[in-house]
Amino acid sequence: MDKKLLGIDLGGTTIKFGILTTEGEIQQKWSVETNILDDGAHIVPDIIESINHHLALYNMDKDQFLGIGMGTPGTVDLEAGTVVGAYNLNWKTTQNIKEEIERGTGISFAVDNDANVAALGERWKGAGNNSDEVVFVTLGTGVGGGIISNGQLLHGQGAAGEIGHINVHPGGYLCTCGGHGCLETYTSATGVVHIARDQAEEFAGDSELKRSLDNGADITSKDVFDLAKQNDSLALRVVDEVCYYLGFACANIAALTNPEYIVIGGGVSAAGDFLLTRVIKNFEEFAFPTVRDSTHLKLAELGNDAGLIGAASLALKFK
Amino acid sequence: MDKKLLGIDLGGTTIKFGILTTEGEIQQKWSVETNILDDGAHIVPDIIESINHHLALYNMDKDQFLGIGMGTPGTVDLEAGTVVGAYNLNWKTTQNIKEEIERGTGISFAVDNDANVAALGERWKGAGNNSDEVVFVTLGTGVGGGIISNGQLLHGQGAAGEIGHINVHPGGYLCTCGGHGCLETYTSATGVVHIARDQAEEFAGDSELKRSLDNGADITSKDVFDLAKQNDSLALRVVDEVCYYLGFACANIAALTNPEYIVIGGGVSAAGDFLLTRVIKNFEEFAFPTVRDSTHLKLAELGNDAGLIGAASLALKFK
Repeated sequence: MDKKLLGIDLGGTTIKFGILTTEGEIQQKWSVETNILDDGAHIVPDIIESINHHLALYNMDKDQFLGIGMGTPGTVDLEAGTVVGAYNLNWKTTQNIKEEIERGTGISFAVDNDANVAALGERWKGAGNNSDEVVFVTLGTGVGGGIISNGQLLHGQGAAGEIGHINVHPGGYLCTCGGHGCLETYTSATGVVHIARDQAEEFAGDSELKRSLDNGADITSKDVFDLAKQNDSLALRVVDEVCYYLGFACANIAALTNPEYIVIGGGVSAAGDFLLTRVIKNFEEFAFPTVRDSTHLKLAELGNDAGLIGAASLALKFK
Repeated sequence: MDKKLLGIDLGGTTIKFGILTTEGEIQQKWSVETNILDDGAHIVPDIIESINHHLALYNMDKDQFLGIGMGTPGTVDLEAGTVVGAYNLNWKTTQNIKEEIERGTGISFAVDNDANVAALGERWKGAGNNSDEVVFVTLGTGVGGGIISNGQLLHGQGAAGEIGHINVHPGGYLCTCGGHGCLETYTSATGVVHIARDQAEEFAGDSELKRSLDNGADITSKDVFDLAKQNDSLALRVVDEVCYYLGFACANIAALTNPEYIVIGGGVSAAGDFLLTRVIKNFEEFAFPTVRDSTHLKLAELGNDAGLIGAASLALKFK
């Protein structure tokens, strides 16, 4: 019988689990809340207990699994299987997660960071079409991503794929990293709202978005895109600025790695083709001709499952 | 006895050859002029003849070689071993170089583009310290480069490593690629002179560089750096602008691939530490903190031999 993969998507609010075939089909899925109390000391024990409980529930044995793969926030040491600096989990010190989870479950364990495993997921079963050359950009609260080339994730010295920190506007918005003008400050969900507030101050035309902002409403990135789709003149300008920076960044990513696909996911990408067509327009403006013709921009297809599927795929290395 | 490598660095004016050990030591070196007449039809026959002639001269046999590796201008199909669009060789149509050279010499043959093999050379025997994570940036007539990650060159869909066409200034100088603001237009040898001419027009202070330009002198990138080293006020400003763009580009390269080393070579890099320290200052200004601490900028060490050594290293795959 074919062995299974166990995928874990560890986030700040929930831990998602999945049992997958080696073809990447999800067969079982469950989740538990993330308990970040006591410096996140409950997280790994909770993971182990949840796995063992569900294997018993499904009448499954550890020998039926090729391995466990997990995506986590923070800085990952792939070899050691440790994580450090995952602040939304309260993991400030180095966590020996590989050792503990292998001991607690008896199953081989591999780990990578969450943006990287989401890239692996979209590449394997999503918009990446299983190509060896895929870049994934996720536009959420922050902007992250993963770069796959020669069929492998790039890690560099551990921090490759920091797509959110490509500088797209020297001297621009202040970023949490201390820089000014990082992609994240313009194209994350909060970045979109930041641009909207800034543009609203200087905008004199008729706009529902402007009225909402002037009335002190708490707008979201989704509100901006929804209004833009209804032809709100300020919202359209905001979207233009967002798509300009994203297209510019994609062109520079493509000049360096010339992937077959740049896959755009995360909450902001829910704006769909309305976003994509505008990003492509800017990408084409900035991209080197050979690259423009060979790198294609696409929307992500897996939504929230990208992390789980990509995490599970890490366990394929135990084949 | 250990087998040898044969490296070829094919350029628009000369073809350089070298016989190397599998450790990368050059044992013999020679060159011939590149005959680009008749659509470059003489180039491959000349290469074959020169190899066979020199092997006879050195009393060597084809069986003593692991293989031949070559760096070439143009767009390379690695699998097929073909080259197209190498305009400085007059190769406009597809050239079956692998097939012809293997038939003509009886030795296995591998090829990649010239910037990529120079990156391999600097990584193997130069400033790259044989790291698995090295980016090479060459500042010559144009700006090119190669990216090595996970120990392998990135090719993407064939045009990865187009470092000269990272956009560093939207709406900036017009590039040969049709874009505006490519790195190449500011940091190539011609880019440096372009900046000098532009800045001279608006410069009112005392400067030998300004006097030379106003007198219609034909200045070079080297002249600009030499004057800057003598504290010429305009030349210093030009160098600042060059180093700003190069530091900015290096920071964005490092955000994506986080290499251990970014190695800067090519003619403009002859300015040495005077250039490097200023590029590092700008790099540190723009780089993401984790990346700033783990990616190191260095000057290339192999000079003109980088291409030959890197080309030879392609033949290591026949081991």
